[in-house]
Amino acid sequence: MSSPWRATVLTLFPEMFPGPLGVSLAGRALAADLWQLEAVDIRGFATDKHRSVDDTPSGGGVGMVMRADVVAAAVDAVHDAAKPLIYLSPRGKPLTQERVRELAAGPGVTLLCGRFEGLDQRVIEGRVMEEISLGDFILSGGEPAALALLDAIVRLLPGVMGKEASGDDESFESGLLEYPHYTRPQIFEGREIPAVLTSGDHGKIKAWRRAQAEETTKLRRPDLWEKFLASRPKDSRKSD
Amino acid sequence: MSSPWRATVLTLFPEMFPGPLGVSLAGRALAADLWQLEAVDIRGFATDKHRSVDDTPSGGGVGMVMRADVVAAAVDAVHDAAKPLIYLSPRGKPLTQERVRELAAGPGVTLLCGRFEGLDQRVIEGRVMEEISLGDFILSGGEPAALALLDAIVRLLPGVMGKEASGDDESFESGLLEYPHYTRPQIFEGREIPAVLTSGDHGKIKAWRRAQAEETTKLRRPDLWEKFLASRPKDSRKSD
Repeated sequence: MSSPWRATVLTLFPEMFPGPLGVSLAGRALAADLWQLEAVDIRGFATDKHRSVDDTPSGGGVGMVMRADVVAAAVDAVHDAAKPLIYLSPRGKPLTQERVRELAAGPGVTLLCGRFEGLDQRVIEGRVMEEISLGDFILSGGEPAALALLDAIVRLLPGVMGKEASGDDESFESGLLEYPHYTRPQIFEGREIPAVLTSGDHGKIKAWRRAQAEETTKLRRPDLWEKFLASRPKDSRKSD
Repeated sequence: MSSPWRATVLTLFPEMFPGPLGVSLAGRALAADLWQLEAVDIRGFATDKHRSVDDTPSGGGVGMVMRADVVAAAVDAVHDAAKPLIYLSPRGKPLTQERVRELAAGPGVTLLCGRFEGLDQRVIEGRVMEEISLGDFILSGGEPAALALLDAIVRLLPGVMGKEASGDDESFESGLLEYPHYTRPQIFEGREIPAVLTSGDHGKIKAWRRAQAEETTKLRRPDLWEKFLASRPKDSRKSD
């Protein structure tokens, strides 16, 4: 019997968790013990009487920096070395669906949420943290990023999604954006569902969806399209 | 007297809001009426006796698609045309700090959170939605993305951050990743704060930080580095 996939989140705001992860798909899975979540207050590892976790930046400048010694004590108290230790930071590697799948396939993660200007660089290096960024924008802290990352991981854990939504056919899994969706009513404000989708011809439907996915990717994300072309085996380039 | 910046979120899970946005920086700003948040349940706009909001995809396939008529009714009931109408979707344009700044400078936003396989394409086109993606990964729905987007916006609203953290000197604002931070203690596990930072020489400190920011960006994000070089005026390329 293996233990469920487990996330340990180091944060100054443990009350933000489970938050949205306590509702809907992730919330039902949490209640069913398909995954586990522990939020640990970094402030509990402060050593002075004011329980301070931050100090002014060396060299000057605005904001405060989270102290290496306090963060290290928190990491050392809760982190299981068999799991990735991830610091959510705009300086990190942009998150990809591939990394999400890898994390879901492992035993769990320890996530470290920064606040203020960020962490003292020495604890990032001293504890060999993996730095992951959600994207090229700035949050008030790592917590919203941790919530998004966990949401992305949890839906892929065994038993969480039914087979009605397997995740195999969606954006990025094929290297392409997904094709557009339609459902009833047949006519919405004069707009009809594309005829091919109601034709019953599964070959044509598949080809139309593939063409739409390629077209959308080319138009909206030339960067993804280039990667997609580069990653295709030569045989499939010829035959498609 | 202008009204505060206001977010209207259309969702099937209004209980996810304010969630983490009710705590810390964003939460204090919400309590102080520096911004406003309304979460509206899309299910309230269903018209049949089962209050259904979704149906099976035309053309077959797994999952369910959110109905154009129900979503359109919800949008029409709450959306103010003076604001952007944003659909959070992995098929959208990746969010940037530049777009975050634009949204913070406007009157507010209407955010639409999809669930299941996504929205019927006809309502995305019929209501001319702006599609924004957090990054190249898949969430269980638009809600975690909406929470992150709002967190990024709210911290930039007037009065939310003190001048101790103005946001001018951080990753992406200059087109570079941010330099590393250090604070007391002077020595952490044998690692010293770089001597330049405790030298008191502000010119040297500025130059060191700039060099670190450039070095980190080159190494970790060659894509950003290329954009940064391309966007610099020719004069500064010469003099740097």
